[in-house]
Amino acid sequence: MRNWLLPEFIEDSLPTEAARIEMLRRTLLDEFRAHGYELVAPPMLEYLESLLTGTGHDLDLRTFKLVDQLSGRMMGVRADITPQVARIDAHLLNRDGVTRLCYCGSVLHTRPRAVDATREPLQAGAEIYGHAGIESDLEIQRLLFSALSACGVGAARLDLGHVGVFRALCRRAAIGPELEGELHEALEAKDRAALQALCAGLPAETRAALAGMPGLYGDSDVIERARRELPDYPEIAAALGDLERLSLDNRFQVGIDLADLRGYHYHSGVVFSAYVEGRASAVALGGRYDEVGKAFGRARAATGFSLDLRTLARLLPGAEPPGAILAPWDGDAALAAEIARLRGAGEIVIQALPAARDGEGCTRELVKGPGGWQARDRAKRS
Amino acid sequence: MRNWLLPEFIEDSLPTEAARIEMLRRTLLDEFRAHGYELVAPPMLEYLESLLTGTGHDLDLRTFKLVDQLSGRMMGVRADITPQVARIDAHLLNRDGVTRLCYCGSVLHTRPRAVDATREPLQAGAEIYGHAGIESDLEIQRLLFSALSACGVGAARLDLGHVGVFRALCRRAAIGPELEGELHEALEAKDRAALQALCAGLPAETRAALAGMPGLYGDSDVIERARRELPDYPEIAAALGDLERLSLDNRFQVGIDLADLRGYHYHSGVVFSAYVEGRASAVALGGRYDEVGKAFGRARAATGFSLDLRTLARLLPGAEPPGAILAPWDGDAALAAEIARLRGAGEIVIQALPAARDGEGCTRELVKGPGGWQARDRAKRS
Repeated sequence: MRNWLLPEFIEDSLPTEAARIEMLRRTLLDEFRAHGYELVAPPMLEYLESLLTGTGHDLDLRTFKLVDQLSGRMMGVRADITPQVARIDAHLLNRDGVTRLCYCGSVLHTRPRAVDATREPLQAGAEIYGHAGIESDLEIQRLLFSALSACGVGAARLDLGHVGVFRALCRRAAIGPELEGELHEALEAKDRAALQALCAGLPAETRAALAGMPGLYGDSDVIERARRELPDYPEIAAALGDLERLSLDNRFQVGIDLADLRGYHYHSGVVFSAYVEGRASAVALGGRYDEVGKAFGRARAATGFSLDLRTLARLLPGAEPPGAILAPWDGDAALAAEIARLRGAGEIVIQALPAARDGEGCTRELVKGPGGWQARDRAKRS
Repeated sequence: MRNWLLPEFIEDSLPTEAARIEMLRRTLLDEFRAHGYELVAPPMLEYLESLLTGTGHDLDLRTFKLVDQLSGRMMGVRADITPQVARIDAHLLNRDGVTRLCYCGSVLHTRPRAVDATREPLQAGAEIYGHAGIESDLEIQRLLFSALSACGVGAARLDLGHVGVFRALCRRAAIGPELEGELHEALEAKDRAALQALCAGLPAETRAALAGMPGLYGDSDVIERARRELPDYPEIAAALGDLERLSLDNRFQVGIDLADLRGYHYHSGVVFSAYVEGRASAVALGGRYDEVGKAFGRARAATGFSLDLRTLARLLPGAEPPGAILAPWDGDAALAAEIARLRGAGEIVIQALPAARDGEGCTRELVKGPGGWQARDRAKRS
């Protein structure tokens, strides 16, 4: 094996892809900024307790662990940035009012999330802290829509769910944590047979509701169907009311999926997944997670989303490489001034290094004419 | 111990610092791009053999090691990006002509390089491959100068060295690798006593030259002094000629330091360190490292520099936070249009979430007057 092969699900970004990712990065961060989201950058490394506080077993398995030579304590390389941002809101900023934060950075996963996933996502996201109402969920979804549009990703669809429905069914039927976990897995996998087996000993109402959940998927009339089919608990009515409000007032084309419990371990309310043309799996995931800050001693209402810029970059059409201008290495002061002017105006100017094959990709060149230095097409050279 | 303390030499970047780092990042990458440097993004993780190929023991000690669950092989989290970019030039791009590459990404260190250093530098840099002449060293130094100027870092000074001088002394005196390593350490530490002891058995000419090297430090007249004091080997004459050419044709204020052997293990020619006002240690390091690609099976001439954006960001004056505009949550179509217009023009507009303390940092607000929605100072509100 050649020693420069990369590990599986780990890749270099070469110039075309790297430029596209950088463009997306700036577009997203500019969009977040324009909406009042302040950029923060938590570290790649934290002590494990801090990194995994309030998160689930799945994130634990996905996190690379390291020994800190300075303290002897275990550290982890972050596999998700959202809990870090919740820590920053809870402890470092410590504001009482609404706080909007955003971030963009690499995370590492011990194993890829899917066969087409990377183990090094470039995670970007936005979060609102300190507002428990449906309006902040709406704001976050609007921000996601305008961010995806600004990135040039078209035909976006949003699937909405609400972990409150499943939670209410479990609590009302006094289902223990072990069975709850198994039911959650069966629902996630949409495994109706397993679901039926697990429901065997439960009250008829709960059994019927759980068995029906995988079918509560489709466009927004699912909400009406859920009102008829699910038990009439106030928590469920409130959850369905939230979903209705979000589906009426949304710029995305909205679908409902009541069995979507992807982020169940840390989410507490509305959850959503955004899909775009050209990719079967979601490009962005988000939702409400009011409980995460509690682990840091300060529970704050929270809602947000995150996405992987590498995945997004693959969905965009390849851009033509920008045409660079070749300039001679030696020249007069006027050449230096013209080069500086062109670079300042956003052009790429390469000064050809002596005795080398240089500037082969340049489409234009700077030549001295009667009117001074001017860029002209290289093809025109005779 | 509260579980949200961060490990030593690891920090969050909160909004003011994160915004400043993002600004610097864009400024640097734009400067690199304008000079024809193509962005690449190697991964955070590689197999250890690949990551440490052609680098020194110091980088090995500084690299966090992990087991790859997928292959069972050892991986490392990169502690330096330069060797990764050399790998990309050697194998992935595989061009014959001159190639200019740049990068910006996080690296992790098991231990900090200095008491004021971070264990998570944000390393940015630029490299030229495929040109062995002094002009590429000059181009790289000019690029560093314009990059630092664009970032607003003032009064820059460049210390130049050349590893060829020490290498020639060792080779001519047939000094073995062990003694060479010890001499290197003593020179790095400018430890004259240790140097004298190590030189005891060497030829008089070599002894005098090595003993004199720590003194060959100062402004460019050091080159003349070195010509008189060092042996008249052609390699040394060539090295001093290179240094003279660089010191004459440089926009930095140049100093010479012949005992600067910092990157000795992978550098092969001119080396340099850039200093700015407000910080005793170097803000950027660079030099020629023609041998690194060889480990990947394709030796290419190479020269470049790198710097840590976190360090650079600390040297800049704190910027006033931008004044955001507060807008009501509910409004007419004209409000939505005005908000979109302002955001598109680079303004930050926050729509106040209902029933919450929101937009407390806003300096202006959108109000509806006879002429439509207009932004006015919040202080003027009566």
